Amino acid sequence: MVKAIIFDVQGTATDFHSTVCEEAQRISAGRHPGVDWAEVVTRWRAGYFTTLKAAPSEHGKWISVSSVYRRSLDTVLDESGITDFSAAERDELTLAWQRLRPWPDTVAGLTRLKRDYTLATLSNADVSAVINISKRAGLPWDAIFAAEMVGAFKPDPAVYHMAATYLGLEPAEIMMVASHKYDIRAAAELGFRTAFVARPLEFGPGGDADVAYEDEFDINAADFLDLADQLGC
Amino acid sequence: MVKAIIFDVQGTATDFHSTVCEEAQRISAGRHPGVDWAEVVTRWRAGYFTTLKAAPSEHGKWISVSSVYRRSLDTVLDESGITDFSAAERDELTLAWQRLRPWPDTVAGLTRLKRDYTLATLSNADVSAVINISKRAGLPWDAIFAAEMVGAFKPDPAVYHMAATYLGLEPAEIMMVASHKYDIRAAAELGFRTAFVARPLEFGPGGDADVAYEDEFDINAADFLDLADQLGC
Repeated sequence: MVKAIIFDVQGTATDFHSTVCEEAQRISAGRHPGVDWAEVVTRWRAGYFTTLKAAPSEHGKWISVSSVYRRSLDTVLDESGITDFSAAERDELTLAWQRLRPWPDTVAGLTRLKRDYTLATLSNADVSAVINISKRAGLPWDAIFAAEMVGAFKPDPAVYHMAATYLGLEPAEIMMVASHKYDIRAAAELGFRTAFVARPLEFGPGGDADVAYEDEFDINAADFLDLADQLGC
Repeated sequence: MVKAIIFDVQGTATDFHSTVCEEAQRISAGRHPGVDWAEVVTRWRAGYFTTLKAAPSEHGKWISVSSVYRRSLDTVLDESGITDFSAAERDELTLAWQRLRPWPDTVAGLTRLKRDYTLATLSNADVSAVINISKRAGLPWDAIFAAEMVGAFKPDPAVYHMAATYLGLEPAEIMMVASHKYDIRAAAELGFRTAFVARPLEFGPGGDADVAYEDEFDINAADFLDLADQLGC
């Protein structure tokens, strides 16, 4: 019955935490020995979520997610007492979100799933960011769908409806995959099938990722290879 | 300077004429020995163009290209005196536009180009049709862009601007590739780079495809392999 599978990208398909931490440490170049970069990145990501919820658009104009990250970074660095990152270094660090590494199982899992299903992204990141991440990481999507295409962020129903329209499928024919329960719960309410994928390291070692399986989801999986196994691919 | 290449699909990347002719002959199953199917398909395609130009939307609602083909088929079959195609057969024949075969050089050319450039479609066909065609044919796009995503058909400037926005690039960083001069001329007016690819068999053997090279285009190419050669891929 499921013909297409749509995926969250930041966190579910890719490991933003280790990628962005490493990039921050590289740019810091030893200038900030006392800083806990894992904490900085966790607060940066939280700042992004707060901004998306508070102001999806300004005066009717779409705000790029890249600019949300860039502004959120200034706040986080200020709060961390890091004042000597230049504007160019801040721009460079923000670009790390377009170079996210896939989880070790991502490419192999998607490659198996692609044989039987149409695979697409459904991301809140900018379209260009999703393309850049995917090309760099070799993620074999059949299509890129992102919030920017509909002018609203997940979990707004318009984002999920867009994917169904563009796929030419009913929600029940589409499975939404994410490591974030709010995302797949929003899809489930609209009639999509759901798969929860646990990403225990989403916020780094010791981070508080919610990895508890729930009966409400059609599938609970340990990673994309487990998802492929459970779908018989 | 060029970072991304965007491609027309129906005619430029795929051979709709032979694909749809074969499917019509298969469904006809010998019932119409006097019919010139090449002529029928050429008139079907012309009917599609007339409809797109005349009525891109009805009462503000987007019309799927699949429904345009379906309605245009009724007219063409009537005019050809073919009255015994059932509704199911007409639906089936219309689906041929979602199963277009690539030209022999398409996959190999795109595979070479993809190493150095971001590749995307820019098609007037429905998003779902472009996905279906691409998945079946193994066309290795980094992204699918289609008229449906902006609610206007090429050569409307909004369609080309959409591609630039979603790629996060300036028009001068993007090359538009098509076998139809109106398409690349529209892109050129907006500052995009252009490549004309000759498709002498677009309307079948003896069809009147315009294959004349023009100095106004940045590149004139015999096929996608020649395009890759000229771009140094």
